[in-house]
Amino acid sequence: MPSETLLLHFAEDEASATRIAQAANMAMARIERHRFPDGELKLRLPPQLPPHVVLLRTLDHPNEKLVELLLVARTARQLGATHLTLVAPYLAYMRQDIAFNPGEVVSQRVVGAFLAGLFDAVITVDPHLHRVATLEEAVPVPRAVVLSGAPLLADWIATRVEKPLLVGPDEESAQWIAQAAAQHQFDFAVCRKVRHGDRHVEVALPTVDVKGRNVVLLDDVASSGHTLAEATRLLLAAGASRVDVAVTHALFADEALQLVRTAGVSEVWSTDCIAHSTNTVSMASAIAAALTH
Amino acid sequence: MPSETLLLHFAEDEASATRIAQAANMAMARIERHRFPDGELKLRLPPQLPPHVVLLRTLDHPNEKLVELLLVARTARQLGATHLTLVAPYLAYMRQDIAFNPGEVVSQRVVGAFLAGLFDAVITVDPHLHRVATLEEAVPVPRAVVLSGAPLLADWIATRVEKPLLVGPDEESAQWIAQAAAQHQFDFAVCRKVRHGDRHVEVALPTVDVKGRNVVLLDDVASSGHTLAEATRLLLAAGASRVDVAVTHALFADEALQLVRTAGVSEVWSTDCIAHSTNTVSMASAIAAALTH
Repeated sequence: MPSETLLLHFAEDEASATRIAQAANMAMARIERHRFPDGELKLRLPPQLPPHVVLLRTLDHPNEKLVELLLVARTARQLGATHLTLVAPYLAYMRQDIAFNPGEVVSQRVVGAFLAGLFDAVITVDPHLHRVATLEEAVPVPRAVVLSGAPLLADWIATRVEKPLLVGPDEESAQWIAQAAAQHQFDFAVCRKVRHGDRHVEVALPTVDVKGRNVVLLDDVASSGHTLAEATRLLLAAGASRVDVAVTHALFADEALQLVRTAGVSEVWSTDCIAHSTNTVSMASAIAAALTH
Repeated sequence: MPSETLLLHFAEDEASATRIAQAANMAMARIERHRFPDGELKLRLPPQLPPHVVLLRTLDHPNEKLVELLLVARTARQLGATHLTLVAPYLAYMRQDIAFNPGEVVSQRVVGAFLAGLFDAVITVDPHLHRVATLEEAVPVPRAVVLSGAPLLADWIATRVEKPLLVGPDEESAQWIAQAAAQHQFDFAVCRKVRHGDRHVEVALPTVDVKGRNVVLLDDVASSGHTLAEATRLLLAAGASRVDVAVTHALFADEALQLVRTAGVSEVWSTDCIAHSTNTVSMASAIAAALTH
């Protein structure tokens, strides 16, 4: 769809948008944004849009960005777009998928329906789905595409670490870790995780012998850093030669990166799904392939 | 509708919600909110809701609050609410009502339609409408109620200032100022305003003699404070005895209040539409009357 497709992006995503637009051979244009003193946003799109429009917006710290999506999507339709694709390398509100207590907002369902009301297609990377099996269930759009950072992170690890032992920080990462490991015949194992609140986490190491091993902790998202820090301390105490970290989504709230480094992690690698100083792997080619399939 | 109606509010609006609930003889309940380290919100409503639910949320600094409205409204319907009223004493995004340049987002229309998709009724105070005549045009809900802070501010001024001269800072305030003045037979006049960008404003005083007068600058919203500060300097230079300020919406961005005081304003009064240290007039009774009419 190259010539009739336009990739829209915001100023802070210029680098990522450029990589995707080049890989997809697609025109791109920036949405102008002005913030008024009272917190309201003024947005300006290109005055005329082709039928196919792609909006790039990664949804870490999502609330204001969700309002941007509303404003942009509704306006894009008025300016000529008939098919709107959201590329959200990080997709927000995917974790709250049931009401643990009566009255709790099931935000995955509400935000998923909101996005489905705005876009015809959604492309994302490693969404943090627990109790729903497919992205379509969470975001009921006609076309919902899930890409994975695991194969690209595995390729990166293969060039940087000798005979790595991939370790997943919790049971949920098992299938994902296995897939990344299989590609290069890496050894792998998975921790067990017990969570007490947002920031307090207990980790139990797998039974595999880590003595003298180059361990890479691999996960879909690094947020508070507590799980990664705790696993690193346990792995080093158990005799691991070194511990590196590779994640798809470098959320790294507050002092999280410092916490991980203090625990003894040597290197931290991430994909560019969320722009961060640790980005070493670009998802641009995979996203471009999904856009032009 | 008292017994089947529940007023929902957030913790920071507890005081305002209590005043409205008491005036309307209505039950109230707090929405619990938790913020995750990544910026996502977890909200919890009362597990069972009556048919009529009122949500109080004033929409200064609106973006995150608009996401809250989405999450609350969708969930309230699932929990039993069949009629949802939004009480937004300050209503956001009402100023951007046309595209001044091609491609600009007409956010009033988008946000208005968004709210109309969530709520059956909207009650607000002095919305900043320019080129649309009625709130229904901006927010197409079955019941759109506009209240005014002007009469209550006029009552307050009558008890505090001897023979006040009400001055409106721009032509848009003329009708509103006239209404407030008529109630107590105050003298009144209106400035002309030329705006250069968000923060630079030129004001031309009215021709009326202000020498020795107790002037009250009356407006619907104080945001950057530049207009009020400039008008105050001109009024004092022209011989006014004193200048006080009365506004419905105390947005007062950044150093705005300091700016106004430095210009020579004696007292600043506002309604409680936006919680602020200058609040002296409560809209609770007027809002309660609109809820129970």
